[in-house]
Amino acid sequence: MTSPGLIEYKDASPEVRAVYDDIMATRKTDWINNFWKALAHDPATLKRTWEDIKQIMAPGALDPLTKEMIYVAVSVSNQCGYCIASHTAAARKKGMTDAMFHELMAVVGMANETNRLAAGYQVEIDEQFRS
Amino acid sequence: MTSPGLIEYKDASPEVRAVYDDIMATRKTDWINNFWKALAHDPATLKRTWEDIKQIMAPGALDPLTKEMIYVAVSVSNQCGYCIASHTAAARKKGMTDAMFHELMAVVGMANETNRLAAGYQVEIDEQFRS
Amino acid sequence: MTSPGLIEYKDASPEVRAVYDDIMATRKTDWINNFWKALAHDPATLKRTWEDIKQIMAPGALDPLTKEMIYVAVSVSNQCGYCIASHTAAARKKGMTDAMFHELMAVVGMANETNRLAAGYQVEIDEQFRS
Amino acid sequence: MTSPGLIEYKDASPEVRAVYDDIMATRKTDWINNFWKALAHDPATLKRTWEDIKQIMAPGALDPLTKEMIYVAVSVSNQCGYCIASHTAAARKKGMTDAMFHELMAVVGMANETNRLAAGYQVEIDEQFRS
Amino acid sequence: MTSPGLIEYKDASPEVRAVYDDIMATRKTDWINNFWKALAHDPATLKRTWEDIKQIMAPGALDPLTKEMIYVAVSVSNQCGYCIASHTAAARKKGMTDAMFHELMAVVGMANETNRLAAGYQVEIDEQFRS
Amino acid sequence: MTSPGLIEYKDASPEVRAVYDDIMATRKTDWINNFWKALAHDPATLKRTWEDIKQIMAPGALDPLTKEMIYVAVSVSNQCGYCIASHTAAARKKGMTDAMFHELMAVVGMANETNRLAAGYQVEIDEQFRS
Repeated sequence: MTSPGLIEYKDASPEVRAVYDDIMATRKTDWINNFWKALAHDPATLKRTWEDIKQIMAPGALDPLTKEMIYVAVSVSNQCGYCIASHTAAARKKGMTDAMFHELMAVVGMANETNRLAAGYQVEIDEQFRS
Repeated sequence: MTSPGLIEYKDASPEVRAVYDDIMATRKTDWINNFWKALAHDPATLKRTWEDIKQIMAPGALDPLTKEMIYVAVSVSNQCGYCIASHTAAARKKGMTDAMFHELMAVVGMANETNRLAAGYQVEIDEQFRS
Repeated sequence: MTSPGLIEYKDASPEVRAVYDDIMATRKTDWINNFWKALAHDPATLKRTWEDIKQIMAPGALDPLTKEMIYVAVSVSNQCGYCIASHTAAARKKGMTDAMFHELMAVVGMANETNRLAAGYQVEIDEQFRS
Repeated sequence: MTSPGLIEYKDASPEVRAVYDDIMATRKTDWINNFWKALAHDPATLKRTWEDIKQIMAPGALDPLTKEMIYVAVSVSNQCGYCIASHTAAARKKGMTDAMFHELMAVVGMANETNRLAAGYQVEIDEQFRS
Repeated sequence: MTSPGLIEYKDASPEVRAVYDDIMATRKTDWINNFWKALAHDPATLKRTWEDIKQIMAPGALDPLTKEMIYVAVSVSNQCGYCIASHTAAARKKGMTDAMFHELMAVVGMANETNRLAAGYQVEIDEQFRS
Repeated sequence: MTSPGLIEYKDASPEVRAVYDDIMATRKTDWINNFWKALAHDPATLKRTWEDIKQIMAPGALDPLTKEMIYVAVSVSNQCGYCIASHTAAARKKGMTDAMFHELMAVVGMANETNRLAAGYQVEIDEQFRS
């Protein structure tokens, strides 16, 4: 199998379990999604990635729901099926309504369209945006 | 020149001027940025694109600043230089602080990283995200 | 300098000159654009790439202008500045009118938009498209 | 479920049905593909997207088959599975032969290759493409 | 069916069989993976693509395993599911250990992150990298 | 200005200087490239990104030059101009020869091509790559 498979909690090393425990405590859930169970094959990357996400997605100048929707926007632009499913679910859990999801998709679609119009028309950056 | 150049207000047809006028009135500015001046070579696309953006970026379930930051997130993921400059400026104008910009960038960077980890580890979508 | 620079005709090896000569003869021009002058640092890649392009872009079931516009469409989607400039110029030379360029851009923009709507809404492929 | 599911004709609001009816009439088919049934959760986006596509994909300076093949080219570059399946089917229906499909794929592949060679060799845009 | 299906060895033309034979001989395997069976619908592309890959992936200044890991890195960045599976398998066969795979993924993830930070912060290229 | 500009060593806070010092010590150089000077506006991201890169790019199962070439491969696929320039320079410094650079580019180009052929032909993953 080219995919490394998943490491379940019961089979995990103490190092990996510590990360799993922190994920569940931080997210107030009792399960671990597959992304982390796959990364667990590389405990250094598992720990670094989780700690980065925990720091970055914490409430700050932007609220957690806004951050999660930005995560969805990037995942959709990149056509990452797993990430779209997992972060859309996370955004729903954090309060994204149907109306918010629809507007998020509309903006993401529009931005992808005008990104190409700007490139194709070879538009120069306005002085006003430089100074 | 492979780029079609820019159409200034004084040289624009009445049809194009009407769009320019609506852009300036809607945005409460007295100038038009290059993106629209380039699209003006194709009045049908100019009008359609502007009306779409006007509809999509209007206040709704998401506020205009959140929408603008989502626009920046997509533009950064797509490496569109013009769009990054113009939409970052627009987000600033709508109230994005330095702290908000920094967190926006951190989320966009992180999402681009984990999008590839999920793909490279060939992670299957969890049942919990399907049902 | 991280860029390898350009190899001019007068400085080129006989192997490279043979490719340059074939490019100019095939395209009925008297100059070589920078892409080939950069690739000339690696004569094997220069020759292979030119021969592939010569084969692929020749008239066939699709005419050369259609092929060139498809090339522009891909380059715009990928945000490749050099490729957008060079292939838009090539398409112009092969007969792309302003009206054709405008429609090409409109389709490319739209496709980039709906590609993300399909991904974001996690749309399943219809049975009709499978059988 | 993170995917919003599909809205069938019989369950659709009059507003959504009007779009479905126009899609079927314009395309001379008696069914609606999943993309539209998913977008139907957001009638404003459904209507705007359909009207944009109807305008953009109509015969003009470019014929409908050429436009559809450009749509396929973008969808393939973006790795959008749904869009590749649906627009390849649409292009087939509009007359794309096997030979045309093969040449389309060859151009798309080649363009994606040289887009990266141009970027990696950091090729500067020729003066001839600027003026 | 929008996908053209697969051409098995027993159903292949002599021209296609010659390529299949060369693939199996070069790779020292007794089977052909689906990528080639799909391309076989277009013998010219099958032959050109195989000969290009054979030339490019041969031992040279870079060893075959390094080349295969670079192939994986690109495929992961592009979210190409088929290519991730096939080239990860190929890299494993050429000697990629678990530890090497983990580091490969970590670098690919990190590069995708900083590519966006550099774009989003609109960082200018240092003089030192230009001269 | 939409770009946040650069923070020079002499203007940096002690927290930022500590990162700059570690970058110069680790890389055995006496200057800081613009990427870090831009990130310095957000000391948390500066520190996290540097520490991640330092961990990831250290010698391990893969040697530093191989890692740097993988970084270049990703940056080229993503069309990130800054990253292509900076990581190509870094790879040169770590020993990448012209011949290695040429082969790296050839593999990156080829992978981008076949990634799209696999997608466009809608190739199913072989059982052999799954088990």
